[in-house]
Amino acid sequence: MDQVQATIITIGDELLIGQVIDTNSAYIAQKLNSIGIAVHQRIAVGDDADSITNALDTAIAKCQVVIITGGLGPTADDITKPLLNSYFGGKMVIDQPSLTHISYIFEQIHKKPMIERNRKQAEVPDVCEVLFNQSGTAPGMLFKKNESLIFSLPGVPHEMQWLTNEQVIPILVNRLQLGVIAHRTLLTAGVGESFLAESIIDFETSLPEHIKLAYLPSYGMVRLRLTGKSHDAVSLNWDLDSLFQSLKLKVKDNLVTDKDEPLEVVVGRLLKDQNHTVATAESCTGGYIGHLLSKHAGSSTFFTGSVVSYDNRIKTEFLDVPTTVLQTVGAVSKEAVEQMAIAIRSKMKTDFGISVSGIMGPSGQTDEKPLGMVWIGVSNKEKVVSKVFYLRFDRQKNIEVTANQAINLLRLLIINKI
Amino acid sequence: MDQVQATIITIGDELLIGQVIDTNSAYIAQKLNSIGIAVHQRIAVGDDADSITNALDTAIAKCQVVIITGGLGPTADDITKPLLNSYFGGKMVIDQPSLTHISYIFEQIHKKPMIERNRKQAEVPDVCEVLFNQSGTAPGMLFKKNESLIFSLPGVPHEMQWLTNEQVIPILVNRLQLGVIAHRTLLTAGVGESFLAESIIDFETSLPEHIKLAYLPSYGMVRLRLTGKSHDAVSLNWDLDSLFQSLKLKVKDNLVTDKDEPLEVVVGRLLKDQNHTVATAESCTGGYIGHLLSKHAGSSTFFTGSVVSYDNRIKTEFLDVPTTVLQTVGAVSKEAVEQMAIAIRSKMKTDFGISVSGIMGPSGQTDEKPLGMVWIGVSNKEKVVSKVFYLRFDRQKNIEVTANQAINLLRLLIINKI
Repeated sequence: MDQVQATIITIGDELLIGQVIDTNSAYIAQKLNSIGIAVHQRIAVGDDADSITNALDTAIAKCQVVIITGGLGPTADDITKPLLNSYFGGKMVIDQPSLTHISYIFEQIHKKPMIERNRKQAEVPDVCEVLFNQSGTAPGMLFKKNESLIFSLPGVPHEMQWLTNEQVIPILVNRLQLGVIAHRTLLTAGVGESFLAESIIDFETSLPEHIKLAYLPSYGMVRLRLTGKSHDAVSLNWDLDSLFQSLKLKVKDNLVTDKDEPLEVVVGRLLKDQNHTVATAESCTGGYIGHLLSKHAGSSTFFTGSVVSYDNRIKTEFLDVPTTVLQTVGAVSKEAVEQMAIAIRSKMKTDFGISVSGIMGPSGQTDEKPLGMVWIGVSNKEKVVSKVFYLRFDRQKNIEVTANQAINLLRLLIINKI
Repeated sequence: MDQVQATIITIGDELLIGQVIDTNSAYIAQKLNSIGIAVHQRIAVGDDADSITNALDTAIAKCQVVIITGGLGPTADDITKPLLNSYFGGKMVIDQPSLTHISYIFEQIHKKPMIERNRKQAEVPDVCEVLFNQSGTAPGMLFKKNESLIFSLPGVPHEMQWLTNEQVIPILVNRLQLGVIAHRTLLTAGVGESFLAESIIDFETSLPEHIKLAYLPSYGMVRLRLTGKSHDAVSLNWDLDSLFQSLKLKVKDNLVTDKDEPLEVVVGRLLKDQNHTVATAESCTGGYIGHLLSKHAGSSTFFTGSVVSYDNRIKTEFLDVPTTVLQTVGAVSKEAVEQMAIAIRSKMKTDFGISVSGIMGPSGQTDEKPLGMVWIGVSNKEKVVSKVFYLRFDRQKNIEVTANQAINLLRLLIINKI
């Protein structure tokens, strides 16, 4: 059995002028992958009839599944729905369940009268199966042509996500004979991509035909992913598990996690398991470390809080960094971050503390302290450890890498590796 | 003269399984747009010879400019370079300037010996123009076929960005006769997309053929963008300026900025202009408001710092929220955020304070306090103002919308609108 292939088409001028970053495609690709559908390609086109028609022609010719997102909003720059109607040869009719739902949203939730523009959202081509959208006002649609199923979803991320999970995926699982794709992902820290590759070259060259290895750099760390394709889930998972086991052994000194999860989730779990807490004293990251630690559900069990001392005065007033330290070695120093890491732990009464102070760019460097220089400190009740990093990215990326390196340093302290 | 059209091809299995979000395409699209090149479509394909070849064939047949990113890293999952070599009929040779540069990076910066894998990065097809890459180890390449210029760039974002700005854009400007695309963008707050559209329907329907209006929802606000295409920059800019002026008048009650810039940049400028400072007292956003305020260069002139009181104990110990308030009306209340906004301003000695406390999900709601309920407070020396919001997104999006609504409330206080 051949594997079912999909094309994802995202519609919107904003994607072609770069004003919006396309996160929808990644979401849909993950979900399709998880049920064994391979994404053959992703195409982004503008709000333009010819481009959309061409993309549809190409996609339907090549793939059994086509997912379209975007172009179903209430405003006049949306041409997708009338275009799909004529492409599939239908006429527009009101879908009563959608209309009832849209009226409910306006009258009961927004407490505003529904206008004609909203009413039109309940119109659908009579040649589609309507996919009821409980999460918003634009219904999804399913068309058929030749052997292909063509889904059209709104571009608003939470509506697209709801429809994908509650409608698209169940329909695909029920109606298609699906092959299997499976992945195993691990995260390493402390070794560069080239050197990592050199150390596992024998492993990589000995992989069987149906299993591939990929290197994914991730905020100063490297993620490794094995991908296998087969028609037999049992044997594929057996092969992957066995290969993944030997890969883990080969990188064991640098292994952070053998799951496909962000670093901060790994550290959150370590803290939760020990019933421990952490607080952060941030300078150059401006609160981003606290954000990473608290962005996942359940973080209130281990994340207590932060002091962001962006102004040096706050380092002294809230974190007891002596003004003599600031005046002699400066805020970007071993002395400053170690004091910050000790103070935040003691003042917020947590088990661990994290601190950072650095020069994120594009300016602020001195002769001794180059752009991208950052000191990171971590503390527990026994000790405080600090380390200096020299980053060479832009400001935004420097902030992200600093936050990840700080959380990784905390991980090393928790597991007694530093 | 017809407008020059481009296709952007991004290569990498990680894009098709949704493990990585494609930010490179958006960056390149913006840069091409700024010099009058329209992006016709974006295609993402896997590390697979047939798919890459097909995408190249399609792109070259339709577009005068093709930009390929990804697939030039040092590891063995990269097949792009040999494929381009055979597609364009060349043979691989060492590029001496690139080799010298790579050796320098390893010996002088990384202080590690260069391995064969790194040396191979200096190999290029002899049928391309080499684009020297000062920002990394993978050189860019420029091929020609029929009437098309085909650029191949590494996928590492900061290397891709450097090559785009320093090599690709100057080459395109020098060698092609370019038409003009121009945009005018403004941001509104406090009015939904449908109602905004209804209020400017006359404006929209009267737009000339060569100018389009788009609605871009943005964290609970709406961005409006006029896009014009022409061969004459002077008349196009004149038309756009005049239409933009009347659009601004039509939305003046909800206008946040008439530039294409994020909300926090607008608020940062307001603060800087008045020589004022702000500090944040965050709970459910975990530091994200501080991150937004400090992520742009120059923020140290107005952003002083934050206290993230994720644990209620910190609200009492650091922000003087009475335990009676926490026990009676709770942390997600008008009383709590008003106290937090007053305390952070006073303790960090700033001109303005921001506070938030809410239930971001997926759990934590009660009968009186639903998921997505969030109180936001802002303070200056005269007063404290608070407002409750009911959001209905997922946790991550709720955090982002809360942060933006909080910064917008600060904006309204700064300009005396609340």
